[in-house]
Amino acid sequence: MSEIKTYIEEHKERFLEDLFELIRIPSISAKSEHKADMQTCAEHWRDHLLSLGIDKAEVFQTEGNPIMYGEYIQDESLPTVLVYAHYDVMPVEPLDLWKSEPFEPEVRDGHIWARGADDDKGQSMIQAKGFETALRLGLLKCNVKFLFEGEEEIGSIHLEDFCREHKEMLKADIILVSDTGMVSKDVPSLTSGLRGLAYWQIEVTGPNRDVHSGHFGGAIANPINELCKLIAQVQDEDGRIQIPHFYDDVIELTEIERDMIAQVPFSEEKYLKAIDVDAVWGEKGFHTLERNSCRPSFDVCGIWGGYTGEGAKTVLPSKAYAKVSCRLVAAQDHKKISEDFVKYIESITPKHIRVKVTPMHGGEAYLCPIDLPAYKVAEGAIEKVFGKRPLAIRRGGSIPIISAFERVLGIKTILMGFGLESNAIHSPNENMPLDFFYKGIEAVAEFYKAFPQD
Amino acid sequence: MSEIKTYIEEHKERFLEDLFELIRIPSISAKSEHKADMQTCAEHWRDHLLSLGIDKAEVFQTEGNPIMYGEYIQDESLPTVLVYAHYDVMPVEPLDLWKSEPFEPEVRDGHIWARGADDDKGQSMIQAKGFETALRLGLLKCNVKFLFEGEEEIGSIHLEDFCREHKEMLKADIILVSDTGMVSKDVPSLTSGLRGLAYWQIEVTGPNRDVHSGHFGGAIANPINELCKLIAQVQDEDGRIQIPHFYDDVIELTEIERDMIAQVPFSEEKYLKAIDVDAVWGEKGFHTLERNSCRPSFDVCGIWGGYTGEGAKTVLPSKAYAKVSCRLVAAQDHKKISEDFVKYIESITPKHIRVKVTPMHGGEAYLCPIDLPAYKVAEGAIEKVFGKRPLAIRRGGSIPIISAFERVLGIKTILMGFGLESNAIHSPNENMPLDFFYKGIEAVAEFYKAFPQD
Repeated sequence: MSEIKTYIEEHKERFLEDLFELIRIPSISAKSEHKADMQTCAEHWRDHLLSLGIDKAEVFQTEGNPIMYGEYIQDESLPTVLVYAHYDVMPVEPLDLWKSEPFEPEVRDGHIWARGADDDKGQSMIQAKGFETALRLGLLKCNVKFLFEGEEEIGSIHLEDFCREHKEMLKADIILVSDTGMVSKDVPSLTSGLRGLAYWQIEVTGPNRDVHSGHFGGAIANPINELCKLIAQVQDEDGRIQIPHFYDDVIELTEIERDMIAQVPFSEEKYLKAIDVDAVWGEKGFHTLERNSCRPSFDVCGIWGGYTGEGAKTVLPSKAYAKVSCRLVAAQDHKKISEDFVKYIESITPKHIRVKVTPMHGGEAYLCPIDLPAYKVAEGAIEKVFGKRPLAIRRGGSIPIISAFERVLGIKTILMGFGLESNAIHSPNENMPLDFFYKGIEAVAEFYKAFPQD
Repeated sequence: MSEIKTYIEEHKERFLEDLFELIRIPSISAKSEHKADMQTCAEHWRDHLLSLGIDKAEVFQTEGNPIMYGEYIQDESLPTVLVYAHYDVMPVEPLDLWKSEPFEPEVRDGHIWARGADDDKGQSMIQAKGFETALRLGLLKCNVKFLFEGEEEIGSIHLEDFCREHKEMLKADIILVSDTGMVSKDVPSLTSGLRGLAYWQIEVTGPNRDVHSGHFGGAIANPINELCKLIAQVQDEDGRIQIPHFYDDVIELTEIERDMIAQVPFSEEKYLKAIDVDAVWGEKGFHTLERNSCRPSFDVCGIWGGYTGEGAKTVLPSKAYAKVSCRLVAAQDHKKISEDFVKYIESITPKHIRVKVTPMHGGEAYLCPIDLPAYKVAEGAIEKVFGKRPLAIRRGGSIPIISAFERVLGIKTILMGFGLESNAIHSPNENMPLDFFYKGIEAVAEFYKAFPQD
């Protein structure tokens, strides 16, 4: 048995108890009545990390929930790992669906059951205990900084500003985050990319008031018909987005990555059945698992206009609206895409209607090159503990703060997550398999043991 | 001076007083507190027509407001004119915008001001007094029946059934209606056609629940995107409707009609300015005044789906809906068009979404051939009184009961209306120019004098 395994085995009861203590603080960021719990939780982390032996730790106040920062600098000349995590959790409603109290953790059937068991208290404790293990065993060859926020579940409202204001303090070579998942229990993986986003509202104006469709129908353009035509022109039949220069900056998937994606167990039949759809659809030439994570997409998120009540009312409305978005991939610049979309819609707008396109918000995609040395270290650590080389998997959603770290601090992030789909994060009966909790700790300790590569 | 003009001149004070008496009954069909007024008004008409000398008149009860029927049969072998009108009026709110009491008619600046001054009390009194004039002067060469309903402003709910149940009683050669308008004071016209309607609701289903646009965007079809594509495929770039066989039964405009439409004073600049639109749009090859009345059209009346609240929420919704309609022209069969549309949408629906198209309601278009003898008689009567040959003008809206008369009773209608845009029907300060009231009576009397043509 490795010294890491042995240390974890010897301390496993305490590790679990440390997690339980953390979980018992009901730090729900979405609810103002938990304001005091946020402060308590940040201080709890400060005290806990200090107790592990880090040099200093501090709770910084923000306009919102406090940010806990701590550091263990053994030698200024060594490389530095910045561990990011969040101590806030999601609300617990509906309470009656929980089999045990959300903030009174318990172990049942080999799982830890509680709000935060995975997201992100379980995973952040994996980071803390992996660090502790490496530290106690004298394996650390780097400095470690900890940045724990209390607003991840409500949009990391104050963290980007905090990073901008504390660039020097947060200086590091790599960011390590345990807040994502693996493909499955048997298919270990690392998250190598996240999609970005661009979002717009389109307002189409026809006549200056709703008019009689009998008196005007056929004589003037209908803003809803025209909005539909505009939207229909954003993609071609093959699902390719028609905005000029849209694909210019897309980093194409490498053969290695496509091979890895092809190894992900995937049954189209089951996939379709789960959402009750008869066929997939999207950009031609790419697999469903590529399209939903490694390729940009275009979706109308909302549309409205005219009469939407019961029955049949004839009207030629004055206005029609849509909220539309593109998921973006590296290295698309969401600001450039946003401008290009506005220009494209302008270019296809006929003179018989007026169109206003308002960019709403956006964020960059994130891509971690899988030949990055720190990624390789994480890959090796996972392989050692889970017995298989982890697949590099990109995720279709966005974690805006990861892109912000790169943009503001100029640091890449390794997304070394230990979650599973069945952990039910954000839902009742959130849980974490006990063995994943300990394997996670082991993998983090192995990471530290191997970082930096010689 | 003609004998008709002389008779009208001699009785003009009484004619006006008869109209005022009718107007003073506040027969607002949309408001249940006026239930008793509806009965009063129907009885008032019965008594008034009997006082003019018709053979019999009766108030028929329906599930809604009563229907007044009367007849003057001088000789069974003579042709019969059926006069249709309505005695109900629209609500009067907002009351503070009226310059005089809506149900206390007065003459100011050469106009009659009151609710119903035009629609349809003024115009129905024109019919009654035109009939009286012809009768008194011994000009009548036909039988005359009167069918006055009290639910026109709320959709003629019970009239079609009434017609079906009283087909024999309502037998006639032509229906005469004064409930439409003229192009302008200086451009007399007759309404020769009305558009029909077909109306559907489209429901597009994607995944069986709203899903994360990050996790599914690009992998599966979005029902809103797809709904837009379907709608965009209903018309081509030239505004032609793509439903197969859609135009098969359309009766094309004759050269005579196109010439008449070309004589209608029309300033595109003013037209666009009034609705603040930069350009007209519609079926290529037709004038705006043709497109808005003589050609079928396709309009989305309402659309909705996904997130329509404030701000930017990313979602790939489960459902998208639209209410869509076609205005139809003679001799399109709304039931056939309705089925053809359902088939067309089915035929262009891709397998990655599910679409349900529900026909909502429909109605036939109405077309009066301008070489119909009774139309010619009306044309001559108008020309005699207004000094110009009236233009045959089709209207873009629908008067469902006119199509129902043709369908149920098999009788064509002459729409001999004396309204003007400035009469403000349905609005505060409804009015009728005094000279139009008397000219209308004269024209109706001239109609009777000339009907049937020798």
